[in-house]
Amino acid sequence: MALVVQKFGGTSVADPERMRAVADHVARTKRRGTDVVVVISAMGKETDDLIRIAHDVSSTRPGREMDMLVTAGERKAMALLSMALHDLGVEADSFTGSQAGFITDTTHTNAKIVDVRADRIRAAVDAGRVPVVGGAQGVSTDHDVTFLGRGGSDTTAVAIAHALGADICELYTDVSGVFTSDPRVVLNARKMERISFDELLEMTATGCPKPAMRSVEYARNHGVRLHVRSAFTWEPGTLVIPAPDSEEPDMEQAIISAVTHDTDESKITLAGVADRPGIAAHLFRALADQDINVDMIVQNTSLEGHTDISFTAPKDETDKAVVTCESLVEELNATGVTADRDIARVSVVGAGMKSHPGVAATVFETLAANSINIEMISTSAIRISCVVREDQVEQAVQVLHDAFKLGAGPALVD
Amino acid sequence: MALVVQKFGGTSVADPERMRAVADHVARTKRRGTDVVVVISAMGKETDDLIRIAHDVSSTRPGREMDMLVTAGERKAMALLSMALHDLGVEADSFTGSQAGFITDTTHTNAKIVDVRADRIRAAVDAGRVPVVGGAQGVSTDHDVTFLGRGGSDTTAVAIAHALGADICELYTDVSGVFTSDPRVVLNARKMERISFDELLEMTATGCPKPAMRSVEYARNHGVRLHVRSAFTWEPGTLVIPAPDSEEPDMEQAIISAVTHDTDESKITLAGVADRPGIAAHLFRALADQDINVDMIVQNTSLEGHTDISFTAPKDETDKAVVTCESLVEELNATGVTADRDIARVSVVGAGMKSHPGVAATVFETLAANSINIEMISTSAIRISCVVREDQVEQAVQVLHDAFKLGAGPALVD
Amino acid sequence: MALVVQKFGGTSVADPERMRAVADHVARTKRRGTDVVVVISAMGKETDDLIRIAHDVSSTRPGREMDMLVTAGERKAMALLSMALHDLGVEADSFTGSQAGFITDTTHTNAKIVDVRADRIRAAVDAGRVPVVGGAQGVSTDHDVTFLGRGGSDTTAVAIAHALGADICELYTDVSGVFTSDPRVVLNARKMERISFDELLEMTATGCPKPAMRSVEYARNHGVRLHVRSAFTWEPGTLVIPAPDSEEPDMEQAIISAVTHDTDESKITLAGVADRPGIAAHLFRALADQDINVDMIVQNTSLEGHTDISFTAPKDETDKAVVTCESLVEELNATGVTADRDIARVSVVGAGMKSHPGVAATVFETLAANSINIEMISTSAIRISCVVREDQVEQAVQVLHDAFKLGAGPALVD
Amino acid sequence: MALVVQKFGGTSVADPERMRAVADHVARTKRRGTDVVVVISAMGKETDDLIRIAHDVSSTRPGREMDMLVTAGERKAMALLSMALHDLGVEADSFTGSQAGFITDTTHTNAKIVDVRADRIRAAVDAGRVPVVGGAQGVSTDHDVTFLGRGGSDTTAVAIAHALGADICELYTDVSGVFTSDPRVVLNARKMERISFDELLEMTATGCPKPAMRSVEYARNHGVRLHVRSAFTWEPGTLVIPAPDSEEPDMEQAIISAVTHDTDESKITLAGVADRPGIAAHLFRALADQDINVDMIVQNTSLEGHTDISFTAPKDETDKAVVTCESLVEELNATGVTADRDIARVSVVGAGMKSHPGVAATVFETLAANSINIEMISTSAIRISCVVREDQVEQAVQVLHDAFKLGAGPALVD
Repeated sequence: MALVVQKFGGTSVADPERMRAVADHVARTKRRGTDVVVVISAMGKETDDLIRIAHDVSSTRPGREMDMLVTAGERKAMALLSMALHDLGVEADSFTGSQAGFITDTTHTNAKIVDVRADRIRAAVDAGRVPVVGGAQGVSTDHDVTFLGRGGSDTTAVAIAHALGADICELYTDVSGVFTSDPRVVLNARKMERISFDELLEMTATGCPKPAMRSVEYARNHGVRLHVRSAFTWEPGTLVIPAPDSEEPDMEQAIISAVTHDTDESKITLAGVADRPGIAAHLFRALADQDINVDMIVQNTSLEGHTDISFTAPKDETDKAVVTCESLVEELNATGVTADRDIARVSVVGAGMKSHPGVAATVFETLAANSINIEMISTSAIRISCVVREDQVEQAVQVLHDAFKLGAGPALVD
Repeated sequence: MALVVQKFGGTSVADPERMRAVADHVARTKRRGTDVVVVISAMGKETDDLIRIAHDVSSTRPGREMDMLVTAGERKAMALLSMALHDLGVEADSFTGSQAGFITDTTHTNAKIVDVRADRIRAAVDAGRVPVVGGAQGVSTDHDVTFLGRGGSDTTAVAIAHALGADICELYTDVSGVFTSDPRVVLNARKMERISFDELLEMTATGCPKPAMRSVEYARNHGVRLHVRSAFTWEPGTLVIPAPDSEEPDMEQAIISAVTHDTDESKITLAGVADRPGIAAHLFRALADQDINVDMIVQNTSLEGHTDISFTAPKDETDKAVVTCESLVEELNATGVTADRDIARVSVVGAGMKSHPGVAATVFETLAANSINIEMISTSAIRISCVVREDQVEQAVQVLHDAFKLGAGPALVD
Repeated sequence: MALVVQKFGGTSVADPERMRAVADHVARTKRRGTDVVVVISAMGKETDDLIRIAHDVSSTRPGREMDMLVTAGERKAMALLSMALHDLGVEADSFTGSQAGFITDTTHTNAKIVDVRADRIRAAVDAGRVPVVGGAQGVSTDHDVTFLGRGGSDTTAVAIAHALGADICELYTDVSGVFTSDPRVVLNARKMERISFDELLEMTATGCPKPAMRSVEYARNHGVRLHVRSAFTWEPGTLVIPAPDSEEPDMEQAIISAVTHDTDESKITLAGVADRPGIAAHLFRALADQDINVDMIVQNTSLEGHTDISFTAPKDETDKAVVTCESLVEELNATGVTADRDIARVSVVGAGMKSHPGVAATVFETLAANSINIEMISTSAIRISCVVREDQVEQAVQVLHDAFKLGAGPALVD
Repeated sequence: MALVVQKFGGTSVADPERMRAVADHVARTKRRGTDVVVVISAMGKETDDLIRIAHDVSSTRPGREMDMLVTAGERKAMALLSMALHDLGVEADSFTGSQAGFITDTTHTNAKIVDVRADRIRAAVDAGRVPVVGGAQGVSTDHDVTFLGRGGSDTTAVAIAHALGADICELYTDVSGVFTSDPRVVLNARKMERISFDELLEMTATGCPKPAMRSVEYARNHGVRLHVRSAFTWEPGTLVIPAPDSEEPDMEQAIISAVTHDTDESKITLAGVADRPGIAAHLFRALADQDINVDMIVQNTSLEGHTDISFTAPKDETDKAVVTCESLVEELNATGVTADRDIARVSVVGAGMKSHPGVAATVFETLAANSINIEMISTSAIRISCVVREDQVEQAVQVLHDAFKLGAGPALVD
């Protein structure tokens, strides 16, 4: 008998009506002869609300108490969904992270899973029951309640799917799948039927908001097939699966799958740095020590023994990054530090570009033909990212989406 | 310059994050050169919450106070969206129903629009501003605040679109459009690009939940084009437009557009009624006097001067209907009253059936081939409805959806 | 070192500001050199809200899931208060009912405490820490989470106070103590400095709303001194203590402590019953089997072998009681059943009446002098209750309060 | 017939149960033959919640939209209370600030009342009805909805009481009156039966939290008698009335009414300032220009032409005050600026001190006898304030409360 893990996010279970709709879907799946394990997040924005009230109440917020507090959200949701399933004649039991066998390290508020002892869940499934597991929670090796952090329910779902050898892990959310681009920017963006783990990871890293990157990595590493889909329309969404074997020619393999963008970063440039070994290592160690998330890095070729190093970092870490760089100016013989907040990144992602060397050229030509200047370039095996002016990035997304013919025919009047 | 009315329902603006996402979309539309008038519902389930708290506080609930209470929800939402638009550099102003010129009758909690004096809204649009109108509200001819009832924001949107001569009225919700069938039941149900007013009205009347029927009727009667679409994925949805002129042959006109179903009705039968004029009139007047919503009606041919009359009514009105019928048994010389709650209705809807006389035969043959017995039949020009056993209705929907090839290719693994 | 248990009810911790105010009070108590164990209820009306959402979601509501759901409220509150205490430099730890050692039976949603193994709490206190215990919860002998029912936090507080041998158990609420009568009815009602367990139990049984009767019984049975006081004004409230030894003359012992009333009952009369042994037993067994909470019972003296039996029961159980009585009319040779919903009960309570035989006479004379007819009378050692017309009960309360001089001087203008 | 204005704050009407309790009290007052006008705040913390969600949604928050948003809270509350009153047979009508005749200036979010045209309210009262007025709101001379700011409902109540010539204005809250000191600090603090406007203003200015100072000033200026009392216990609270005529000897006039304290201020000292005319004016003009709320000011006598100027300001304005002072150091020939955050103020307030010159001496002696050093002194006709070390202020409050015998006998065990 097939086994599916169905994970429902907060908006999917935001109110009693939605809770019953989710129970109805789970019951249908079960009636169709598929075993189901449910993973559930806190209702609506409850996790946000709990964190906020903690901030209102306390400025110290010990981790042990935070995790006791925040995990109450999933406890409520899992108990309620179990009740709703009982109403539909489905034998269901709620399980906390601890009861479900999630053993974590002791890093409160952002714990890591160290083991999944899924015996109770497996026994419930074998008995024909539907376990409803509270997402994003576990018990630490110190026997305290722990929370896996924001987006942790996705990880719970993938981990339990792996532990049980489930056929697929369905991640239900409020969008109907993964799109070729942001439909707000590109009116003819198209939902993809399938995408590879690697492509989705590149997309998530460059602006596509869902699902949580950590869970996709977990799924890729353990070969857990994902299905990203909507709990509002219930239509089929996007399958996330291993890339097709490159040996086997797939005529329908698109060269480019998606165009993403990100406007949350700034560009910082350290100019006139002495071009000698260890300079970059020194700089980026200093930035890492300040918990600054550096993304793209570009170093120009040396000109008379000096060079410029540019990198991007989140906009809200820009000030900290500038201060860190300035503290190194003297030591690195640099001539100055500048920050530019008005940049954005556009990326094309596609596993097919590995075997199509002309993709980069097409990207650059397309941007040039539209008078969009490229300020930085970074590539991986399946992604090309360009930094452009922020006020040109939506145009850049649109023209690249058109250039690679990702659209689904003419869009409706907007 | 084009003018669009954009209406956002409760789930679209359920929290601050969603409120900002909506503002972003409005701002993008405005930046693309289209004038926008926004109509907004109360946030999330606030209208439900307000009605519930009124029930908790009071058993009398005078209408004037209820409308003062309930309309507070839209006031909050419209003020917040106006603020969010200001943040994006869009000049916006909130307008209550009264300020927007909605004059209604004095039927508190379910008022009818009697006039829309849209001068202030038009002036704001002409001045390059975005008016944000509180949905479902107006001012009565007695100068009291009134509420248009549940789903009234759709009506507000259509009415203001008509009053302003807008090019289109976009109804944003949490689903991505109108589907050929319920995707929970039919895994390969497909979102339609367009549908006619008449078809949507038949669908809404037979199980398709959105949008509010009253607003679709208003739109049809005044020729206001609708676009039903998602505020979560922002992808194009379903256009609702007048039916194509039948003179003009449209090769792509589907014979059948959708298969809907409804499990909320019962069948009541009054057996052995004397077959003489006025009997049916007498019966259904009595039911109407009890506020029973009779839907389908079937009367068998007379057998020796007696006949059976069957009708369907909402499940929660069944008891009342039975009592009413029983009170007439003697007077109508009937032999008894029976009620059957385990029935359901399946309907096929399609403007194309007018010119394709074989549709009914296909429906009956398909159900018969699948051993699904038909208990009642009812038809309109563009709809065929059959009452079947409730536990067979989902199968009926699936086989009819297959028979008319409404699906979009193979569904993904569920 | 003194040890106090401080219990805070829902309104006391309804929002972050109140949560910090409570933490401030706990910290002050600790700084004054008293050890503190805190018991905390869910914030505000959260328990009500959780039960309501369960009703919205499900009609079956299995007990195991209900208790998992409802106890989430106290988990949140206890974590938040622990955080707030940390902010004030007080080392605090939250404890679930299970962690605090509350072992209960398996009666979900209304479990009974079978053991309190308070070792962890005692160890925390000995280490100079403040344990913050989630109220109204435990773990069943089947290892499931259990809920003690509404008002269960009071019981948790008294039980932990008993288990630890605390000097006093303070019950903080939104009223400032126990009053001589309902201040809404008697404008010069006065807060009492102290009252005996027995008196408070009689008061609670006859209309005084707080604290939960079950916890007062627990306190009386185990000799736990209570202090009912306000978490809003923080002024001293009312001590609940054992009655003074009757041997020892206490000059200040008031004859009457309080006048209470109750308008939630009806009077049911079974008339003309045969006056033979076992009749009453038969009747009240039948009522008990229907879970009808009979309160006062009066049987008239027999007249020619027949008598009337009258009793009071909650208004919302009246219909059920009448049906039960009617089913016995034939068997008991009764002549009929009548119900009267327009009655109310007024009670005077006071330990001093044991040694002052004239109290009853004063009660009857006072009511008579004010033309208030008495329909039923019932007495205990320290209480006299009279059933009167409902529209006279507030006057009855006032004149009795005056007759026994319970007021505190002239009331302010109202 | 007497007329009373009853104002209910947020915690008084925080949930449906409380709303019905308030309606019950209003109905009782009306039944006792007193006409009532109700003024009501938003339920619980709703105003805070609305302001917070506005911050979540927008960083610009135009005043017109903020006032539209925030006043929705009182609309809900007033409609609900009107419904609850109808249930009790009391004819009630809700009125917005605009409908009630509150004309304000155009200062959004903190509007000032410019006129109260109470004709509709008076007509409703004359018709035997109970008007329920939304607090803290009005309509501006520009016809926009305005909000009077936090605590504005108190002002609404006092203003409508003045406009109608009401006999008294009752301010219901969650505390039972005005106390001789903070009961959290002084265990035997005592609720006062009455206090004069001037004393309450001094108390409010020096740490007593309620009611809003602006409304007390309005009441004093217009001779509106106030009654500060509890909507939880309903017991009589504290009357706020004009001071007794000093000609008429009042034997019971206490010399000192209350001891208050405040820990929210810092002391800033500008040292070695040249002692010449205009220096202080220059300094405090500069501070005023920065919106710094200076409270106490002390200037030492000159020593060789130089002096120190010390003042207190709110702790969270300390940094700004220091920067402002530092910018003046050179110009004023000062020798430096120091800030001390670890100070607090203790104040004794009492109209009787005017005729008892020894009060100040008693204050100083009492503090000295307890080794509490006084760092600054400031007096008004009816108040003496001393700045002391923050960690000694609670002791200072206690010993002064004892010295003036303000307590009500021995406190209960805490």
